[in-house]
This record gives sequence, C-alpha cells and structure tokens, in this order.
Amino acid sequence: MTYRLYYWPEIPGRGEFVRLALEDAGAEYVDVARTPAKKGGGVPAILRVLDGELGALPPFAPPVLFDPDGELVIAQTAAILDHLASRHRALAGGGDHARRVGALQLQLTIADLVSEAHDTHHPISVALTYEEQKAESARRAASFVRERAPKFLAYFEDVLARGGGEHLVGARFGYVELSIAHVLDGLAYAFPRGFASWRASIPGLLALRDRTWARPRIAAYLASPRRLAFSEAGIFRHYPELDR
Amino acid sequence: MTYRLYYWPEIPGRGEFVRLALEDAGAEYVDVARTPAKKGGGVPAILRVLDGELGALPPFAPPVLFDPDGELVIAQTAAILDHLASRHRALAGGGDHARRVGALQLQLTIADLVSEAHDTHHPISVALTYEEQKAESARRAASFVRERAPKFLAYFEDVLARGGGEHLVGARFGYVELSIAHVLDGLAYAFPRGFASWRASIPGLLALRDRTWARPRIAAYLASPRRLAFSEAGIFRHYPELDR
Repeated sequence: MTYRLYYWPEIPGRGEFVRLALEDAGAEYVDVARTPAKKGGGVPAILRVLDGELGALPPFAPPVLFDPDGELVIAQTAAILDHLASRHRALAGGGDHARRVGALQLQLTIADLVSEAHDTHHPISVALTYEEQKAESARRAASFVRERAPKFLAYFEDVLARGGGEHLVGARFGYVELSIAHVLDGLAYAFPRGFASWRASIPGLLALRDRTWARPRIAAYLASPRRLAFSEAGIFRHYPELDR
Repeated sequence: MTYRLYYWPEIPGRGEFVRLALEDAGAEYVDVARTPAKKGGGVPAILRVLDGELGALPPFAPPVLFDPDGELVIAQTAAILDHLASRHRALAGGGDHARRVGALQLQLTIADLVSEAHDTHHPISVALTYEEQKAESARRAASFVRERAPKFLAYFEDVLARGGGEHLVGARFGYVELSIAHVLDGLAYAFPRGFASWRASIPGLLALRDRTWARPRIAAYLASPRRLAFSEAGIFRHYPELDR
C-alpha cells in the first residue's frame, strides 16, 4: 500500500508536515509532483488533482494525500495528519479519542502560527510578490516578531511543561511533536534574530526538537535528497528587514 | 448531560459555528460567558479556561467546549465540530470515516476563508484597531473582494454541484452546511456590494442557505435571544470603504 502525496515540488511548505509524519511512520509514499511530469508527476499532477481528478470532493489547495486504502482523497494538512494518525499507531492518534482530539487541537493552533508566519511576507495578497507588499510586510512582521510568535511559543512551552515536558499531548510521541519541531526550524530560518531572543524562554521545546530530529527514521530523512531546504519561495522566508 | 461553551459573549465570531451545531443537534448547552460573572460566567470564565482551569491541555483561544462525557476540553472550532459530529448523528460525522474526514477538510477550508475575511480589517495586527491599519485594510480588502472571496465561493459551489446539489459532503446534512450558511450571511453583512456581484455565480449555495435557515431548530434559534447580531466588533464587519 503506497500513499500518494501531492504538494509543490520545490518547497517544504505545508507539505512538510505530511512528509515528516509519513517518514516517521515508515509509510511508503510517492511525492508525486517530484517525479517527472512526462511520467505523470510534476506540477501538472497537482493541477489535475485540484481539478477533481481523484474524486467527487476536490481539494481547495495542496497538500493532498491519496490513501489507496478506501481510495480516500484528503486535503488540509491537519485533516491529513488526523487521518494518518488513525492508520499508524506511531503517529499516536488511533484508539484514544481524547488524545486524537487534543492532537488535532494543537495541530490547528500550529496551523494558525504557520499562517501568521506566512502573512509576514504576504499581508496583502498571495497574488502579489513580497516586493509588491514590502511596506505592509514590515509592519506585520514587527507585530509577529514582538507579539505573536512569542505568544504562540509561550503557549506551546506551557503545554509541554503541563504535560510533563516529554510530549505535547498524551504520553506518546506523535505528529504534533514532528510539526512543532519543523515550525521551530522554520522560525529559526526566517527570523534568526527573533529566534535568538526567544530561545531562553523555550528550553522545553528546544529539547523536544533535538529529540525529534534524533529519531532514526527522521534523521535518515533529513540526510536524504527527499528533504527540501527552506527558501524565499516558501512559507518561512528569511528577509533580514523583517527580522527586527 | 450539558455542554459548556466558552466564547466571547458579544459577537457571533467563531463561536457561532459551534452554537449552530449545538442548536441543530438539539444539544443542551450553556453559553457560559453570557451568564453573569457573579455567577461564574462572563468574560472572567473564559480567562480562567485559557489559564488552564479545566485541565492539562489549555486552549490557545476561544471557542472552547467542555464535554462532561469524558471531561473533554476542546479548543479550535473545527476540532470542536469534529468532536460534536462524533457524538450527534444529526451532525453527520459519526460512523463513516471518509465522510468525517471530508467534513473536516471542508470545515478547515471554511476556516481559511473566515480568517481571510477577518484579516480584511486586521491585516497588520490583532493588537491594533481597524482605524490603526485602515490603509493596509483597504488594499487587503480589495484583493479579498476581487479574488479571494470569489475563489472560495466558486470552490464551494463546485463541491456542492459535484455532490448533487443537496449537501456539501456525503448524502446527509451536517455541520459543514451550517457553517457555510453562516459564512454566506457574514459575507453578505460585511460586503453587501461584493455579495450582490457574487450572487449569480452561487445559486446552489444560496439555496442551501435557505434550506439551512428553514430547519425548525435553527429557525427557532435565529428568532431567539441566544442569537447574536453581526457588528463591527466581530469577524465579519461592515466598513463600506472595504466593500468596493
């Protein structure tokens, strides 16, 4: 059984949360748009899926996961992760309803943080470039660096501490820990000055990130060509003028 | 068994999606912050919940639902609705996994639309008033009215048509239909000029909204004092200068 992931082939983006979960679960998957267009991959494969090629409920945007077990087509990162957790015990969602709901809640809060990080360089319109909305970006980024990012990070540090310091939800590792580790890396890439100032207040999260990246399957993934680097085409972009 | 909802007492806001689901399911609930502070309600009740009063996993923001069955405390609108659907067959989430995942996917896309509608009047910071970010709001709202809102509406109209025109997901009414009906009302309130121009392209959604508001429990709710009006303190705000 091989999953098919449809996501932009050049950036980690929101697809990275799904890739990390699939890798940590040891699931077989094809990152379709990273295969050649002439063999049915590439960006055209994504566009066909957005057009509804896979079924009656088309996605609004990538990432999209096709699960051949049940021929499920799922969009929205958090919905994909919630589904994967129901299939893979390693992702810690199956079985315990309270834990599953708690993980979904935290993942949605991570999604809110990711959206706000994205909007620091696109506060006006996704149809415009960053350069076409630089003035507004400077103002939005200042609010993000000073108020919003610290508020979200303090929240997750608090959640971690209340849970005993090892995991964010319940007593097992799961997709939420993978997601928060990735967000920390993204914030550190995009806002190195800001991140340096936040470090002292998030010792638990930093240790959680280290433990996450040391997991054998994840360490192997990070060292592989499957892993894409952050860049100024993605969600987490490093523009020094926004990192003040 | 009585649910407890914690949400800002003066606005429909994101809490309205939960209220509509509870009302349509005929569930007993207390809208805690709308009860007197001296009796344990009011905004102070929300602040205590945000402080973690109800358990180890505190919410980042309202709405928050307390479900006495299992003593579950759930934040994030879509996670709350997904949970309620697992408890109430009328909300059409229980049983069929594909349908549950599809509903969650659509609700998360609705949430994205709601966030973008909110950011038309707060494109820079939630810590500032609209008046402090009016210039940026004008630019963001223009993009929303011309590009983003029509794109989301065309998507949901297409989903509805592909599903046969009666329901958005599966063959039964559920929380997603309630949510989209509310969003249509919110958009019509905030952007009457824009909405007038979108109407012709969303006949299916408009009919779905009419059917939704005619449901007996929902009609009774809309006529009751429990229903709060849209205003310029909420997510959907009518500023004529943003509706062009």
